[in-house]
Amino acid sequence: MKYTVLGTGLMGAAVAVALVDGGHNVNVWNRTASKAERLSTRGVKVSHDVASAVRDSDAVVLLLLDQDAALDAVGDALPELHGRAVINLMTGTPEQADALAALMAGTGACYLDGAIECYPRDIGRGDALINFSGDEAVWALHADAMRHLAGRSAFVSSDPGAANLLDAALAGTFHNVALGAFVEAVAFLSSRGVDPSAPEVALDYWFDLLKAEARHAVDIVAGGDFTTTEATLSVHLAAVRQWRETALLSGQRASLITAHMHNLEIAEASGSGGLAFASQVATASVRRE
Amino acid sequence: MKYTVLGTGLMGAAVAVALVDGGHNVNVWNRTASKAERLSTRGVKVSHDVASAVRDSDAVVLLLLDQDAALDAVGDALPELHGRAVINLMTGTPEQADALAALMAGTGACYLDGAIECYPRDIGRGDALINFSGDEAVWALHADAMRHLAGRSAFVSSDPGAANLLDAALAGTFHNVALGAFVEAVAFLSSRGVDPSAPEVALDYWFDLLKAEARHAVDIVAGGDFTTTEATLSVHLAAVRQWRETALLSGQRASLITAHMHNLEIAEASGSGGLAFASQVATASVRRE
Repeated sequence: MKYTVLGTGLMGAAVAVALVDGGHNVNVWNRTASKAERLSTRGVKVSHDVASAVRDSDAVVLLLLDQDAALDAVGDALPELHGRAVINLMTGTPEQADALAALMAGTGACYLDGAIECYPRDIGRGDALINFSGDEAVWALHADAMRHLAGRSAFVSSDPGAANLLDAALAGTFHNVALGAFVEAVAFLSSRGVDPSAPEVALDYWFDLLKAEARHAVDIVAGGDFTTTEATLSVHLAAVRQWRETALLSGQRASLITAHMHNLEIAEASGSGGLAFASQVATASVRRE
Repeated sequence: MKYTVLGTGLMGAAVAVALVDGGHNVNVWNRTASKAERLSTRGVKVSHDVASAVRDSDAVVLLLLDQDAALDAVGDALPELHGRAVINLMTGTPEQADALAALMAGTGACYLDGAIECYPRDIGRGDALINFSGDEAVWALHADAMRHLAGRSAFVSSDPGAANLLDAALAGTFHNVALGAFVEAVAFLSSRGVDPSAPEVALDYWFDLLKAEARHAVDIVAGGDFTTTEATLSVHLAAVRQWRETALLSGQRASLITAHMHNLEIAEASGSGGLAFASQVATASVRRE
């Protein structure tokens, strides 16, 4: 397969090299061509204009800085995209993916959107993940190459914005926040003289428990029955208030647990105190139906 | 070994039954005696006053509602505790553990504090965890019985409040908040029509990644070098702003990611923008040194 990668930053360079490793012909273009030149020693062909780079490919992979940079780069070469696949691996919003999909449909290109859920150093690994959405025929044709970039790559939906939506929810609203909560916990312990590298701090236990409880929450939300014989939302809230008080008395700002307490208070005020912890999904939205 | 368990709520009952299963003699007392009676069919002796229950034991396990209820229950029987071990398995603050340890020292009792990090249904399981702190000789004598209650039980410090401090930081500031963030993510996805039970939602990947990144954060904080060749704090903040915008546009309150953004903004304003994500530990405290 012949790929053209537009953009050779950390992620673009990692993707180009991994595609060469996978046995493909790879062309790259970068606005600052000198930054792409070092890739020529890795079996990558460096092009100096977008149109000729695109002409020499089956699929064009977008890894520019952002949506504006991508539109700017492909602007003059849009007619060349006709009949080709465009695989957008840039981080963006669902709305940006929808807009780019519409633009590509207008030029006669097929559009696949991917949200890369790993770091550049992880590209090429079997346990790395990229979620794809959009044109399923493009996915079918390029799945092997994409799984070579990230072994756990998966097609999630024909809605082009779906991969970016999952990214905003899982990489952002969950993962990055949870990592921030862990760092808050480490700061709290450090403030009380606990060595953060002590074995009891980053214990597997807490992550395994979180995985189990998250699956339990999904089952409850999917089932729609929020009654519980276990700790109720109000019991969780009482514990959260005590934990937060301990953090505040230790001099911590305790920002995340304060926001969490507020979520639980809003849920309790709506009448969910006697229901399961996950019943707070009903009060997470501020939109009037 | 002869144990007296004070309090037979969900957790007290589970502990009493598990101790009997472990081959020990178990006495229980509960303020409302009728609620304890059902345990008599499980090999547990039900006592009607605290003093006689305590007299018949090597160690007294506290599982009452809270600190006040415990002080109230043992008040008249304090002299009986002389020379015995008191194992406090109630959830509390480090300060409450310190206060109880001092009271017990005054009566000539040995004090061990335990923070139960699992649900009543998990008592007796090999993968359940109770952290212990306080009198290490008491731990040594009762470790086998405690590991029968929760297989991963561990002694963490001779400071009586240490187990409760770990509880506030790891069960509270980290785990409960992270679970809240996951529930926010599920609510966000549901608001956009994604089935929360779809395989891509509660994917192992996100929990394994969190475990790996948390360990990485601990290494960085313990090492004290916050320079990075990976995504900087400002790069994380830019992504957080985009994810949050997507959540807000989807009608979510986005409380946790907003608090998280604020933490990162405070860290960036302090000059840590070019450093690692974990460098925010330096701005988590509001206490003036």
